[in-house]
Amino acid sequence: MARQAATLSPRHSRGDGCDASASVGRLAATRDLTLRLAAPLSAEDMGAQAMDDASPTKWHLAHTSWFFETFVLTEFLEGYEPFDDTFGYCFNSYYESLGARQPRPKRGLLTRPSLQRVLAYRRHVDLALERLVFRGVRAGGALARLLELGVHHEQQHQELMLTDILALFAANPLRPSYRPSRSRPREAPVEAMRWIDFPGGLCRIGAEDGAFAFDNETPRHDALIHPFRLADRPVANAEWLEFVADGGYRTPSLWLSDGWTTVDRQGWRAPLYWERRDGDWLEMTLEGPQPLLPDAPVAHVSFYEADAFARWAGKRLPTEFEWEVAAARAPVGGNLLSTDALRPLPAADTWGGRPRQMFGDVWEWTASAYLPYPGYRQPQGALGEYNGKFMADQHVLRGGSCVTPAGHMRASYRNFFYAHQRWQFTGLRLAAEID
Amino acid sequence: MARQAATLSPRHSRGDGCDASASVGRLAATRDLTLRLAAPLSAEDMGAQAMDDASPTKWHLAHTSWFFETFVLTEFLEGYEPFDDTFGYCFNSYYESLGARQPRPKRGLLTRPSLQRVLAYRRHVDLALERLVFRGVRAGGALARLLELGVHHEQQHQELMLTDILALFAANPLRPSYRPSRSRPREAPVEAMRWIDFPGGLCRIGAEDGAFAFDNETPRHDALIHPFRLADRPVANAEWLEFVADGGYRTPSLWLSDGWTTVDRQGWRAPLYWERRDGDWLEMTLEGPQPLLPDAPVAHVSFYEADAFARWAGKRLPTEFEWEVAAARAPVGGNLLSTDALRPLPAADTWGGRPRQMFGDVWEWTASAYLPYPGYRQPQGALGEYNGKFMADQHVLRGGSCVTPAGHMRASYRNFFYAHQRWQFTGLRLAAEID
Amino acid sequence: MARQAATLSPRHSRGDGCDASASVGRLAATRDLTLRLAAPLSAEDMGAQAMDDASPTKWHLAHTSWFFETFVLTEFLEGYEPFDDTFGYCFNSYYESLGARQPRPKRGLLTRPSLQRVLAYRRHVDLALERLVFRGVRAGGALARLLELGVHHEQQHQELMLTDILALFAANPLRPSYRPSRSRPREAPVEAMRWIDFPGGLCRIGAEDGAFAFDNETPRHDALIHPFRLADRPVANAEWLEFVADGGYRTPSLWLSDGWTTVDRQGWRAPLYWERRDGDWLEMTLEGPQPLLPDAPVAHVSFYEADAFARWAGKRLPTEFEWEVAAARAPVGGNLLSTDALRPLPAADTWGGRPRQMFGDVWEWTASAYLPYPGYRQPQGALGEYNGKFMADQHVLRGGSCVTPAGHMRASYRNFFYAHQRWQFTGLRLAAEID
Amino acid sequence: MARQAATLSPRHSRGDGCDASASVGRLAATRDLTLRLAAPLSAEDMGAQAMDDASPTKWHLAHTSWFFETFVLTEFLEGYEPFDDTFGYCFNSYYESLGARQPRPKRGLLTRPSLQRVLAYRRHVDLALERLVFRGVRAGGALARLLELGVHHEQQHQELMLTDILALFAANPLRPSYRPSRSRPREAPVEAMRWIDFPGGLCRIGAEDGAFAFDNETPRHDALIHPFRLADRPVANAEWLEFVADGGYRTPSLWLSDGWTTVDRQGWRAPLYWERRDGDWLEMTLEGPQPLLPDAPVAHVSFYEADAFARWAGKRLPTEFEWEVAAARAPVGGNLLSTDALRPLPAADTWGGRPRQMFGDVWEWTASAYLPYPGYRQPQGALGEYNGKFMADQHVLRGGSCVTPAGHMRASYRNFFYAHQRWQFTGLRLAAEID
Repeated sequence: MARQAATLSPRHSRGDGCDASASVGRLAATRDLTLRLAAPLSAEDMGAQAMDDASPTKWHLAHTSWFFETFVLTEFLEGYEPFDDTFGYCFNSYYESLGARQPRPKRGLLTRPSLQRVLAYRRHVDLALERLVFRGVRAGGALARLLELGVHHEQQHQELMLTDILALFAANPLRPSYRPSRSRPREAPVEAMRWIDFPGGLCRIGAEDGAFAFDNETPRHDALIHPFRLADRPVANAEWLEFVADGGYRTPSLWLSDGWTTVDRQGWRAPLYWERRDGDWLEMTLEGPQPLLPDAPVAHVSFYEADAFARWAGKRLPTEFEWEVAAARAPVGGNLLSTDALRPLPAADTWGGRPRQMFGDVWEWTASAYLPYPGYRQPQGALGEYNGKFMADQHVLRGGSCVTPAGHMRASYRNFFYAHQRWQFTGLRLAAEID
Repeated sequence: MARQAATLSPRHSRGDGCDASASVGRLAATRDLTLRLAAPLSAEDMGAQAMDDASPTKWHLAHTSWFFETFVLTEFLEGYEPFDDTFGYCFNSYYESLGARQPRPKRGLLTRPSLQRVLAYRRHVDLALERLVFRGVRAGGALARLLELGVHHEQQHQELMLTDILALFAANPLRPSYRPSRSRPREAPVEAMRWIDFPGGLCRIGAEDGAFAFDNETPRHDALIHPFRLADRPVANAEWLEFVADGGYRTPSLWLSDGWTTVDRQGWRAPLYWERRDGDWLEMTLEGPQPLLPDAPVAHVSFYEADAFARWAGKRLPTEFEWEVAAARAPVGGNLLSTDALRPLPAADTWGGRPRQMFGDVWEWTASAYLPYPGYRQPQGALGEYNGKFMADQHVLRGGSCVTPAGHMRASYRNFFYAHQRWQFTGLRLAAEID
Repeated sequence: MARQAATLSPRHSRGDGCDASASVGRLAATRDLTLRLAAPLSAEDMGAQAMDDASPTKWHLAHTSWFFETFVLTEFLEGYEPFDDTFGYCFNSYYESLGARQPRPKRGLLTRPSLQRVLAYRRHVDLALERLVFRGVRAGGALARLLELGVHHEQQHQELMLTDILALFAANPLRPSYRPSRSRPREAPVEAMRWIDFPGGLCRIGAEDGAFAFDNETPRHDALIHPFRLADRPVANAEWLEFVADGGYRTPSLWLSDGWTTVDRQGWRAPLYWERRDGDWLEMTLEGPQPLLPDAPVAHVSFYEADAFARWAGKRLPTEFEWEVAAARAPVGGNLLSTDALRPLPAADTWGGRPRQMFGDVWEWTASAYLPYPGYRQPQGALGEYNGKFMADQHVLRGGSCVTPAGHMRASYRNFFYAHQRWQFTGLRLAAEID
Repeated sequence: MARQAATLSPRHSRGDGCDASASVGRLAATRDLTLRLAAPLSAEDMGAQAMDDASPTKWHLAHTSWFFETFVLTEFLEGYEPFDDTFGYCFNSYYESLGARQPRPKRGLLTRPSLQRVLAYRRHVDLALERLVFRGVRAGGALARLLELGVHHEQQHQELMLTDILALFAANPLRPSYRPSRSRPREAPVEAMRWIDFPGGLCRIGAEDGAFAFDNETPRHDALIHPFRLADRPVANAEWLEFVADGGYRTPSLWLSDGWTTVDRQGWRAPLYWERRDGDWLEMTLEGPQPLLPDAPVAHVSFYEADAFARWAGKRLPTEFEWEVAAARAPVGGNLLSTDALRPLPAADTWGGRPRQMFGDVWEWTASAYLPYPGYRQPQGALGEYNGKFMADQHVLRGGSCVTPAGHMRASYRNFFYAHQRWQFTGLRLAAEID
């Protein structure tokens, strides 16, 4: 697809010097990566739905194609013929304005269309995207922005594919591996947590102009940040083990009221994928059950657990603004999907006076509710349902995880989940007041 | 496998002259039929679970092999090595005495073991069965009886495989077909229902000695039957349409109390697989959506619906004993799986003064609760869980359906489901008092 | 009201020589007893609903009056004015043909109409009944039968009032008493269970002509009873303690499949009202928590528990026909409501070669499903909903309990509850085959 | 109690000049008001629990006394004997650190202790409080603060008592009135909504030192407020009628995702207490069903509905900080409980360039999640459970309602409920950006 690169509207050039050919290359690479992530899986693996919150891999493959078909091809590619009229019903996720859809908890029943047909759908859409990009010179910035949105949308589903597969394999009594186990990361003693002070003040929050961002990161605005202190790294498994050993899961005073109710009803006693075998703690990973890494960030904890841990530790979670301020000057890098570790790891770099592991490893629960920024406006039309309609009762997470595609991340990125959800790579970093 | 036939214990010979070689032939044929029934399905189709009551085809393939492995091979074949230690957990259905198992509603998550591996499991078990049967001459009647039980058990799962696949495809918005549609059965006007009088009296009920039967058909015993009248055929779709048109689903006085609650909560307005399109009624079948056959027996109705229909018609359902008495001298034949119609059809034979379609087409709900016969004793051990532990709160159905293997059926056969269940080929035949 | 007695239709005379004046006396006495049973309760006690299956006392007081108003007064008393037009909605129990009604689980919200107004309603209905009975000579048998039905209906609610109050007080942390504790019944060693053989044969089952009976006891018909053996008394608390100690509640092989699921989900470990305090077992009674009487019949067990106990004991439950045959010649007496013990007691009489405690103490779960008798016809109109519409998925109990009004009981009486229900005084008696 | 006033520690004097005698007077008056609010109710009314979220009046009477007993008397009054050892279990609301308690949904089952005994409990506690206050001179500020907390706690329950009674009476088919209907408020045309601009900037938010405030209003801190526009009054019933007529409840694009799911499942079509009769809209009130007042603020809408309305109107909800800034200089007054209207009314004052009805009438849903303020510290001990443990997944409401006690309200006051809850007097005021 690279040769059509030049056809992308120059109006889509971005302030940071990235040009259209890079965009088109990213489109092709993203579509390709999705397939490569699915490659280790059988058709059977790709069809099953681990639970109501998760989706089958095959559904992700189709839905990401449907997204391009619906929002891009039908709109911009003259003469485009939808691949199959029934796919709108099958693969619409939640867009009310686009009509009825397969109920979410029943996505695993879609054994038809077959995987083969879904792959043909992908090819159909990819070819049409190629044609479109070739003609795209006439479409202008709106098209380019939608294509970029499609790329970022697909990256979100790449992460979901991996976490949904992990959920599926963790529910399987054979505890299968997504891939063979690789060499074990070195085990080092857990370094003591260090604290970094931030003066706060009036800070600019939200996406900068020019680069791609989701609507929920806008508008960029001033926020008043009070002085705060942030841990240099996320909470590690070894620290979580202390919390467990200290009765953390049995002490109601450590928990939010709804959190305690959830612990009690669900019988939580440890993070989601921890299993005790013969006195040792294992953790179910994409490489199957593995010994817990004491110095790696804890993952698969809910907001309720993160909040309880912070209270137990005498600290608190940072707000999303504090996090963003601290991350602002950090380079976007670390243990993301491109590292191919597929699990959280101890910090690779040495202490240099700045927060580490801000990006990658684990999404970090913040103290902030997922709400619109001052002056936020929901886009018109179906895409207005993308982020805006979820702005209640969820919690912001920041920083990406070990299965977040690298190009997907940035300091202003806002992820959001319900307080009880645990199947993502979700962990935490502590914050505190400056005394 | 046919050549080992002679090795089956002669003590297992049956009164009807069928000999051991026939038994062994049936074993091989049964195992083979299961695979042939699965043949039109993809690995994806075989992995999905339509709902909690249903199971994936792959699970049926494995469970029926596990049954032979657990109850036959481990017991009788010296040196037999179980294929895989984890399969007991995966493929035990409900035998508490055999340990923990994959929760029933999560059978669809077992993307591993793969279909390929399950097929290897089947081959492994089949080969061991061959070896066993070759040596079987020394094992005597107990083995022969268990082998025969295994055959009948597998036949039950053959029927379930087809009804579970129908449930899966009916939940799919594409409404796929299990096989291409064949020539349409001739459409004839519905013949008026005829009534046959039975004098009743003290009748022998239950399985006769000699032939195979499940424990729940025993012991054979006397029962007092009051004079009754039975319809010559099951209720037809055309008659059900009248019930619908007459407000049957909106008239509480026609319904049992729990039935009305269910109608109200589930929003039932017609049998399970009926769909109205452009003013016409279609029925989802194994050949996809098809026009309703007016003169074919209605299928996929619950006990509650059957009971309400009978009340609407001023009749009642027969007891299981009345049904058995009426069926006693009828030859076991009709539209069973061997006919390969895969859907209920109008009666093929002409009226000859006797009830027609007693076997095949649809299971007929009776007025009888599923309870033990006088003097019933549950077998010892795990097999005691086969039928006995379900003897409460279910309803007896008789006669088999269009997807029941032919050799599986007999007049004394007792099937049982809960009053609200509809995904089997379940219909009804009316009965009445003699005035 | 006694002086109007002679006006009751002589056609209602019964074979046992009881005449109309007795009927009228019973009507007055029954209405009066209801009030006396409520007397120990405060308005607060009478308003609360212990759970969905139970009703507030006040509701019982009003519903039994509504029953007379709706089925008797409106029909037979010229110029009768319903007390309050809104009461039909408030106090209709489940008669679909009489229109919408207060949802059953929300009966406890009816703080209005007040108790005072409900008592006025009772007086209004009682006065009208008096007038009616005075004029009743012209109404004939239909009226007399309805009045008698109303009496028996009210007696059913007398029992429910007491069991619902027990449920309410058992859910109260103060464990209040309905009345002060009386002298403790003597404690005697549990007599060994004795067995009585019955030859069976063709037996007449169901209500005899002449005496009052509910429709579900008709028609009287022949049934074939196989020879059986019946215990001379119900299972005692001491025996149930052995079952508990032997792991009865932790052994799946003893249970029906649905029973085990229920034990597991509900965490059952003993009968409903047993409580362990300081190593001793207490039982919540209408006199508050009391030490368990080892030799009294066990009460407040579900059908599932009764069935599991019988299996544990190597016996079975009797069918309702076996029970009825055994009870046929026993006098209707024993520890019924008239005894005023309000809890099951050890047998008062000595062993005389016949079953004891057939009536009173505890309702005895039978092995029989609650189904219509051969030739049963549901009455026309709203009263057809009285018994017929519950004839599925429930289990028959026989014999009455320590809170059943004496005149209410007879050998052919069929009570029915769901297999999981435990708040009635429900126990069991063992049966067995004759070897 | 007034004569003991002088004994309250002078250290508790507050900046606004209110002295200890006022505090003590308020204690007595508050305890007295609770009883007066309950006076129109029967013992039956006081015992029933409308739904899981509500509590019986009797429980409120007892719980508010338990609060003083537990946190004040046991701590500060030497020799104080708790009234009844079982009351801790019965009347603890949610304090985990104080032990087990009656499950919340079962508070309506507490027919014992009787109302009479609960009233005796109140007198016992009141007398002890009198003794304590008499000796209080030595107790100092901690006691005074706890007494004041108790007063404010009781005021919260006064409001809940009235809303819970309304819920109870609205669930009653007779739709009873808490009190007779008074003269109908004049009906005036709805004045057009006016908009007031606020410049924002760095503003002080939270409770000022000196006056009583809950912990969740602290610490007072700076917040950055962007310029905004606020409506001069809450949204009126007439405007809500337009929203209904315009299909507001049937248009998914107006709703948050969780809101639409709720609308769909609950079948919402109007505010909680609206009823359509013969083409007219009535509203269930504490005076029974009343014609809707077009110009009164809409009440009993959920956050989801408030948010959807704002979107429909092209506006948004204000943040809690915007609201507080706008309310800061407004006198705390309006249609509060002291007005004794017991329902929202049109604005009494004329337009004067400032927001009206900021206090009273209806609680106003804000766009803000209920979260801790920067630097918030949960108090030690059981009282730490008072507000802190609810700081997730709830939404802030401001301003008080027509049933909020007057002395209870202030500009910094933060109320909080879940997004779906509607039984409080909850409405909304619109906000918007300044273009």
